[in-house]
Amino acid sequence: MAKLWGGRFESESSKLLEDFNASIGFDWKMWREDIQGSRAHAKMLKNIGILTQGELDSIMGGLDTIATMIESGEFVFSNSDEDIHMAIESKLTQLIGESGKKLHTARSRNDQVALDFRLFSLRANKSLRDSILALMQTLLTIAKDHTHTIMPGMTHLQHAQPVSLAFHIVAWCCSLQRDVQRFQDSFMRNNFSPLGSGALAGTPYGNDREFVAKELGFSAPTLNAMDSVSDRDFALDLLYDIAMLMMHISRISEELVLWSSVEFGFITLSDAYSTGSSIMPQKKNPDVPELLRGKSGRSFGNLMALLSVMKSLPLAYNKDTQEDKENVFDSVHTAKISLQILKECLATTTFHTQNMRKMATKGHLSATDLADFLVRECGIPFRDSHHITGKVVAYAEKKGVDISTLTQQELQSIDSRIKDGASAVLDIESSMEARNSLGGTASAQTLAQIASLEAFITQAKSAME
Amino acid sequence: MAKLWGGRFESESSKLLEDFNASIGFDWKMWREDIQGSRAHAKMLKNIGILTQGELDSIMGGLDTIATMIESGEFVFSNSDEDIHMAIESKLTQLIGESGKKLHTARSRNDQVALDFRLFSLRANKSLRDSILALMQTLLTIAKDHTHTIMPGMTHLQHAQPVSLAFHIVAWCCSLQRDVQRFQDSFMRNNFSPLGSGALAGTPYGNDREFVAKELGFSAPTLNAMDSVSDRDFALDLLYDIAMLMMHISRISEELVLWSSVEFGFITLSDAYSTGSSIMPQKKNPDVPELLRGKSGRSFGNLMALLSVMKSLPLAYNKDTQEDKENVFDSVHTAKISLQILKECLATTTFHTQNMRKMATKGHLSATDLADFLVRECGIPFRDSHHITGKVVAYAEKKGVDISTLTQQELQSIDSRIKDGASAVLDIESSMEARNSLGGTASAQTLAQIASLEAFITQAKSAME
Amino acid sequence: MAKLWGGRFESESSKLLEDFNASIGFDWKMWREDIQGSRAHAKMLKNIGILTQGELDSIMGGLDTIATMIESGEFVFSNSDEDIHMAIESKLTQLIGESGKKLHTARSRNDQVALDFRLFSLRANKSLRDSILALMQTLLTIAKDHTHTIMPGMTHLQHAQPVSLAFHIVAWCCSLQRDVQRFQDSFMRNNFSPLGSGALAGTPYGNDREFVAKELGFSAPTLNAMDSVSDRDFALDLLYDIAMLMMHISRISEELVLWSSVEFGFITLSDAYSTGSSIMPQKKNPDVPELLRGKSGRSFGNLMALLSVMKSLPLAYNKDTQEDKENVFDSVHTAKISLQILKECLATTTFHTQNMRKMATKGHLSATDLADFLVRECGIPFRDSHHITGKVVAYAEKKGVDISTLTQQELQSIDSRIKDGASAVLDIESSMEARNSLGGTASAQTLAQIASLEAFITQAKSAME
Amino acid sequence: MAKLWGGRFESESSKLLEDFNASIGFDWKMWREDIQGSRAHAKMLKNIGILTQGELDSIMGGLDTIATMIESGEFVFSNSDEDIHMAIESKLTQLIGESGKKLHTARSRNDQVALDFRLFSLRANKSLRDSILALMQTLLTIAKDHTHTIMPGMTHLQHAQPVSLAFHIVAWCCSLQRDVQRFQDSFMRNNFSPLGSGALAGTPYGNDREFVAKELGFSAPTLNAMDSVSDRDFALDLLYDIAMLMMHISRISEELVLWSSVEFGFITLSDAYSTGSSIMPQKKNPDVPELLRGKSGRSFGNLMALLSVMKSLPLAYNKDTQEDKENVFDSVHTAKISLQILKECLATTTFHTQNMRKMATKGHLSATDLADFLVRECGIPFRDSHHITGKVVAYAEKKGVDISTLTQQELQSIDSRIKDGASAVLDIESSMEARNSLGGTASAQTLAQIASLEAFITQAKSAME
Repeated sequence: MAKLWGGRFESESSKLLEDFNASIGFDWKMWREDIQGSRAHAKMLKNIGILTQGELDSIMGGLDTIATMIESGEFVFSNSDEDIHMAIESKLTQLIGESGKKLHTARSRNDQVALDFRLFSLRANKSLRDSILALMQTLLTIAKDHTHTIMPGMTHLQHAQPVSLAFHIVAWCCSLQRDVQRFQDSFMRNNFSPLGSGALAGTPYGNDREFVAKELGFSAPTLNAMDSVSDRDFALDLLYDIAMLMMHISRISEELVLWSSVEFGFITLSDAYSTGSSIMPQKKNPDVPELLRGKSGRSFGNLMALLSVMKSLPLAYNKDTQEDKENVFDSVHTAKISLQILKECLATTTFHTQNMRKMATKGHLSATDLADFLVRECGIPFRDSHHITGKVVAYAEKKGVDISTLTQQELQSIDSRIKDGASAVLDIESSMEARNSLGGTASAQTLAQIASLEAFITQAKSAME
Repeated sequence: MAKLWGGRFESESSKLLEDFNASIGFDWKMWREDIQGSRAHAKMLKNIGILTQGELDSIMGGLDTIATMIESGEFVFSNSDEDIHMAIESKLTQLIGESGKKLHTARSRNDQVALDFRLFSLRANKSLRDSILALMQTLLTIAKDHTHTIMPGMTHLQHAQPVSLAFHIVAWCCSLQRDVQRFQDSFMRNNFSPLGSGALAGTPYGNDREFVAKELGFSAPTLNAMDSVSDRDFALDLLYDIAMLMMHISRISEELVLWSSVEFGFITLSDAYSTGSSIMPQKKNPDVPELLRGKSGRSFGNLMALLSVMKSLPLAYNKDTQEDKENVFDSVHTAKISLQILKECLATTTFHTQNMRKMATKGHLSATDLADFLVRECGIPFRDSHHITGKVVAYAEKKGVDISTLTQQELQSIDSRIKDGASAVLDIESSMEARNSLGGTASAQTLAQIASLEAFITQAKSAME
Repeated sequence: MAKLWGGRFESESSKLLEDFNASIGFDWKMWREDIQGSRAHAKMLKNIGILTQGELDSIMGGLDTIATMIESGEFVFSNSDEDIHMAIESKLTQLIGESGKKLHTARSRNDQVALDFRLFSLRANKSLRDSILALMQTLLTIAKDHTHTIMPGMTHLQHAQPVSLAFHIVAWCCSLQRDVQRFQDSFMRNNFSPLGSGALAGTPYGNDREFVAKELGFSAPTLNAMDSVSDRDFALDLLYDIAMLMMHISRISEELVLWSSVEFGFITLSDAYSTGSSIMPQKKNPDVPELLRGKSGRSFGNLMALLSVMKSLPLAYNKDTQEDKENVFDSVHTAKISLQILKECLATTTFHTQNMRKMATKGHLSATDLADFLVRECGIPFRDSHHITGKVVAYAEKKGVDISTLTQQELQSIDSRIKDGASAVLDIESSMEARNSLGGTASAQTLAQIASLEAFITQAKSAME
Repeated sequence: MAKLWGGRFESESSKLLEDFNASIGFDWKMWREDIQGSRAHAKMLKNIGILTQGELDSIMGGLDTIATMIESGEFVFSNSDEDIHMAIESKLTQLIGESGKKLHTARSRNDQVALDFRLFSLRANKSLRDSILALMQTLLTIAKDHTHTIMPGMTHLQHAQPVSLAFHIVAWCCSLQRDVQRFQDSFMRNNFSPLGSGALAGTPYGNDREFVAKELGFSAPTLNAMDSVSDRDFALDLLYDIAMLMMHISRISEELVLWSSVEFGFITLSDAYSTGSSIMPQKKNPDVPELLRGKSGRSFGNLMALLSVMKSLPLAYNKDTQEDKENVFDSVHTAKISLQILKECLATTTFHTQNMRKMATKGHLSATDLADFLVRECGIPFRDSHHITGKVVAYAEKKGVDISTLTQQELQSIDSRIKDGASAVLDIESSMEARNSLGGTASAQTLAQIASLEAFITQAKSAME
C-alpha cells in the first residue's frame, strides 16, 4: 500500500516490514487522545490563519464521524494503517478530501505521538489515583471496626509485640498514601504539552503552543522541541509509580496468603474471591492475592524494559521508542484491575479475631513491656533490663508457657530486681494500649491515624476535580 | 458458571474474579500441547487398566474433533472457561459424555500445565534455533564475498586496525553460534516429562510415566513430583536464552544504524526494509534495526519479570506462577519475527565498499604495524616502539595526514631507530593480511572461520532432526 | 562475642553467621547520621524526664568523643560490632558507663536504622541536585556561545533538519531539569522522621516525636510506626531518580562517543579526559563517555535489586531489608562522580563547528522547508507538498548533490507547481532560523530557553538553602 | 604519572579521570589469573622465537617475585596503576628491565582482560558447583532420616496432600541439581581461550594460540578475534546461573522462615544461626534465611545491570565493558557465602516432626484419596467423585473436624455411592504411602529419588577432577 511518507521511495515496503513495524495493533488504544489532539491542533491552525473556518468545520466534522465509527466498531484497523495517527488521517482525507490533508501542517508524527501518549499516561495516572483512594477507603472502613482487635505484631515473621488489626491495616494504607503522592508528583512534573515541536526543531508556522496546551488541559507547553520528541520520562515515571504500587500490593497480598493458611487461620476469603482445585476437593485457594503478588513481577519487568530501551539513545526521536507503549498499557491495565479486585476481595473477607487474639498470647509478646517496666519502675538501664527479660523468657520457654502467665514470685525468683507490679504489665491488652506515642498502636493513636488518612483522601479527591 | 472444582463452594465466583483469574485469554496458545498431552495420558490410562479400549477410542475421537474445531475457529473460548485445560475437558465431556470425565484421572491441572508449557517451550526452543541458523547462513553468504573488503576495525568507536567486512560479519556469527549452543544446552537440560506428578505428590494409580515421557518425545520423566509442579526453570532458561539472543541482535542493529548514517555511509538498506518520515520528505529511516535494538529491552524485562515472580515462592504450585506464560509467549514471538526480519534486511542491504575502504585510510589504522615492525625488525621492546609510534602519529596529525602517507625520510627524522622498510608496512592491505594468526582478520583466517561456522550449522541442523 | 541481644541465647553465634549477618562493613558510612540521630533522641529523652541533665551531658560528650575517634581513624570497626548502631552504642557505654546504656530507651534498632538511612538518602538527594545544577550551568555556558553554530539535527540518526549546537545542548539540559524536579519531589515526599516508632508499634514512653523531627530538620514525624520500620520507599525513590539521571547521562554520552568518531568529527575530547591504547599508538579513546554510558546499567540493576528485595515482604521489619544499603551507596557514589566528570569533560571539549556545518549541508536537511514553502506560498496541502518534495530529493540524490544546490529551474522542471522563491528557503541558515515557534531552534527561541533554564537553576539552588 | 599508552598525548590525565577510569580497585582480584596468563604467553613467545630462553627465565622469575609480593601484601596497588595488567607489567619492567617490556608483544589489554576475566569466571563456576554439591549432600543426609516423617504438602500455601519431609527436601535438591547442570553447561560453552586475539584483529606474530589454550586448561582457542575481545557471554552466563541458584535459595529460605514462625512451628534454627532483638528480649529471628532471601534481589540486579551494559554496543571492545567485573565479583561472593551458611544452618536445625504430623491432620489432606477411591472402587468418573468429596469436606468443615475422623456411616449419609472401605483410605499414613508412582511421595519412591541424586553428586564431583 502506498505510504503517506513514500514520495522518495522506489520500491514498496515488504509485508514483513509492515507487520514488524506497525504499531496500530496496540496504539489504537490512543484513538481518543489522537482525535482530541487533532481537534486542538486544527483550532490553532485556524487561529493562526492556516485553516479557514470552513476547513476547520469540515475537519471537526470528519473527526466526529471517525470517533463514532471507532466507537461503534465500524472502523477496523489493519497493519497497513501503520499507526493510529496515519489511520485516522487517511480516513479523514478519505471522508472530507483536501482539507484533511491540511491537518498535518505544522506538526509531525514525532510530536503527535508524544502528545497522544502523554495524554494517555496522564489520564491513566488520574484514574489509578482514584482507584487507590477507593481501596484506601475500604481499608479504613475495615480498620475502624478493629482498633481493639488484638493480633500478634511481627518482625522477622516472629511474634514481637501485640498490635491491633486496625493498626496493621493503617500501615498498609500509609504505603498506598505514598503511592497517591507519587502519582500526584509525577502528574504535575509531566503535565506539559509537546505539540508544536514538529519533527525535532519546531515549525516555521508560528504555532500558538500556549493555546494548544490550554485547550488540552496542560499547565504549559514544553520548553525545547528536540527534547520533547525524544523524552519518555513521563512514561517511565508512570511505570515506576505502578511498580511501587504493585510492590506494596504484593506485600499486602503476601499477608493475605499467610493469614489464609491453616497455620495462621486469621482470615477466610469469600467464596466469590476464592478458587478450588481440579483434583483436591477440600481446597480453597487464595488465588487472588497470589496472582496479585505475582503481577508485581510484570510491573518490574515493564519498568526494566523501558529503561533499557531508552539507555544510550541519541537525540532526537528513534524508532526504538515505539517500544514504550505496550509496557505502559500492560502496567496500567494490571494496576487498574489489581486495585479493583483487591478492594472487593478485602471487603468480603472474614477476619477471625478470636484466632488472632489467641495467637497473640503465644511468643511472649509482652516481653518488651517487662523490659520497659524494669527501666521505668526499677531504674535499670535498658540494656540490662533487656538481659533480665531474656532470662525470664528462657525460663518460660523451658516451662512451656507464655510469660504472661508467670507469677510475680516466679519473676522475682529469676531476678530479685524485678519489683512488684511486673506481672500486670505482661497483659497483652495493656501492652497494646501502652504504646501510646504518636504513631503507636494504642487505640487512640490508631484512630488519629485513621482520621488523618481520611482527611488525606478527601483532599486528594478534590485535587483531581 | 459452575466450576469443575466447585463442589465445596457455596457461593459462585464473582465476574471480576473470573476475568482476573482466567488464563484462557493467553494460554489457548497451548491448545496443541494440551491435546497432545491428553492423548498420551489417555493411552497410558488404558495401558494401566483405567480406561477401556472403547473409552480410549471415544476420548481420542473427541480430542480430534476438538482440534478440528479450534483450528477452524469454530471453538470460541471465553473467560468462563478459565483456562485451556478446563476448556478442552469441558468440551470433551460435552461431546462424548461420561468417558470424558475419566480423562482427568491420575493427573492434576498442576502437572498438566507444567507439561503443556514445557512442550511449548521446547518447541519454541527448536524453532528459534532453526531461525538463528538461517540468519547465520545468510550472514556467511554475505561474508564470503567480502574477505578482501577493507573497513576500519574499531575499538571505542575509534579507528583501530584495518579488518575485512567478512571478518566483522563472522564476529556477529560467533555470538549467534553461542546462542544456538545455549538453546541446545537448555533444551537438553529441560527435556523431561512432568506428567504423572499429580497435584504435588504423585498419584495412587501407578501411572506409567516412562511410557508417557517416551510418547511425548522427552528423554525421561522428572525425578520428584513436588519439584515438577513448581519448577519453572525451563521457562526462565528460555527467557534468558532469548534475552541473550536479543542482546546480540541489538549489537548488530546498532552497527546497522551507525553504518546507515550519512557520516558513516557504509550501507544503504533496501527500500523494502526502510521507512520514510511523515514530515521530512528526504528521510530514509533504518526503522528495522532501530526497532530490533529496542526490542532487546522487552526481552530483558520479560526475564526480570519471571525471576521476580519466582523469588521466594514456597513449594509447591502457587497461582503466582500463572504469570509465567505471557512473558514467554511475548519473548518467543519477538525473537522469531526479529530473526526473520533481520535476515531479510541484511540480505537486501547494499554495502558501500568504496566508502569503507576510504574511511580505512583515516585514523592511522596501520600504526600498530609500525610498532610491530619496530619490535620485529629493529629489536625495540614493544613498550618503547609504542612510544615511538605515538610520536609518529602526533607528527602526522599535526601535518593533517594519515601516517600511511609518510615517507621513510620523515619517519627517520622523527626517530632515527626506524629502519628502512617501515613505510611499506603502513599500507592497509598488507596490514590487514599481516594479522594472520588463528582467529585473525587475514583473508585465509577469515575463510577458515567461515568454513568452521558452516560445519557447525550443518551439524546443528542435523542434531535437530 | 556477647551480643547486646543475647539474653535468651544459650549458644553463641557462629563466626560464619557473624560475617554473613554483619552490616558494619558498609553501614559505617552512616556514622554521622547515627550520631546525629542519637543526639536528638538523647535531648528528647531528657525533655520527657528519662535522662537527667547530667546523663544527657555525659552522652553528648561521649558521642562527641566517638565522632572524633571515627574521623581520625582511631575507631576501627570489626564484624563483631554487627552494625554501626551497635558499634557506637557499645563504645559509648565503654566510654561513659551506665548512662550509655540508657540511650537505647524508647527506641529500637528498627527505627534507628530507618532514621539513619533516611537521613543519608535525603542528604545524598540534596548533594546530587547540587551536582546536576552545576552540570546544567556548564552546559548552558557552552550553549550561549553556539546559538548560531549549525549542525545536522537528527532523527533515526539520519539528517533531518538543521539545528544549532546550542539548541541540542539545551535539549540535554531539559532532561537534567526534570531530574532536579524528580529529586525535589522525592525529597519532599520522604522528609519525615521515623524515630519513635520503636520496634514496630510505638513506645510506652510518650516520645516527643515532633521535637525529634524538628531537631533533625524533617517536615514532621511519620504517621504509623509499623509502616515506618518497614518502609523503604525513600530508598527506592532515590534509586529510581538516579537510574533516570544515569539514563539521561547515557544518552548524552552516546552522542559524545559518536561525535568523537572519525566519521562524525564533531568534537575532540581534551587529553586530560581521554585515554590511549596499550597496543595501538594512534588511539585516543573517549573512555569517559563510554564508561558513563556503561554505568547506567549499574544504576538500573540497583533499582531492580531493591524492588525484588521488597516484593512480598510481610510487615513489619524483615532482615531482607538490610539489602537496601549497598545498592543505594553504590548508586549515589556512581551518580556523584559521573556528574563531576561529565561536567569537566564537557568544559574541556573542543567543538569542531566547521565540520558540523559541513555535515549540515549533506542529507537534504532543508527538504521540510521546501514542503512548508509549498504549503504556505503555493497553497498545496501538506500531504501533497510532502510528495512533491520527495521527488525533488530523489532527483538530487540521483544527481549526487544536496537539494540546497538545486536551481529554481531544476525545481520547476520536477514539478511546475513550485513557485519562485523556493530555492531561497533551501538555505540552511534560513532553515534553522525559520523554526521560530516556541521551543524551536531559531536563535531567539534558543536564547529564551537558556534564560528560562538559568532562572530555574537560580530558583532550585535557593530552594536548597 | 606517565601512562604506558601516553606517547601521542600532550597533556597528562586529570586526577579525576584517573579515579573514575581506574579498575585496579576491583580487578586486582584477578592478579592470579593475570600472572598465569602472562606465564603461558611468555612461554609461547619463546616457542615462536620472540623471547630467548634467558628472557623467558627472567620474566618467569619476575612474575614469581610479583606473586610473592602480592600475596604477602608488600605490593600495594594505587589508582595510578590503572588496572591489574598495567600494575603487574610496570612492576615487572621495574624488576627485570628490558625483557619485561617485551612481554606485551603479540597481545593487547583487550585480549588480556578477556583472558583473565574468563579464567576467573570459570574458576568461580567450578567452586560454586562444589559448594552446591556439598549443600545437596547435607540435604540428602537430613532427608534419609525423614522418609516417614509426615507433614502437610501444600499448594497455594493451603494443605493439599500428606507428604514426607524427605520428599519435600528432595524437591529442594532437584532445583539445586538443575543449578549444577546449568553451571556445567555454561562452563563447557565458555571454556575457550581468547588470548592471541590482539586488540581486535589478531596479531602479525603467528601466535601459537593452541599451545596457550592447552597450557591454561582451555578446550581450544576462540574462533574470531573481534568477537573474542567484545564477548562477555561467559560473564552473563555466570550471572544468570547465580541468579537462578539464588532464586532457588530464596524459595528454600522462604519456607525456613515460615517454618520457624510460631504459627507453623515446624523447625527451630540453632542459636548459632539465629539472632535476637535489640529491644524485644524474647525474639529469636531467622536472620539467615531472611537475608538469603533478600540476597536473591542483588543477584537479579547484577544480571540486569550487565545485560543493560552490553545492549547495543558496537564491535569491538568498548570501555563500557569495564562495568562487567564488579557485578560478577559480587554475585560470586554472594553465592559462595550463601551456600556455605545455608548448609550450616540446615545441618544444625531441629525439625519438630510431631508438630508437622499434627498439622497434617488439619485441612482434610486425604480428600483426594477419597475421590480416588470413588474412581477406583465405586466406578465413578473423577469429575463426579471430586464433587462428592467436595460435599464430604463441606460436611466436615461444618462439623468442625477433619474428614479423616468421619465414620463410614457419615460418609454414606452424605452420598450413598460411597462404598465400604472409604474411611480407611482417609488415614494420612496410608494416603502418603499410596502415592507410589514414579516421583511420588511414598517412602520407596523417595528413597529411590535420594539414591538417584546421590549418584548424580558422585558423578558431578568426579567430572570436576
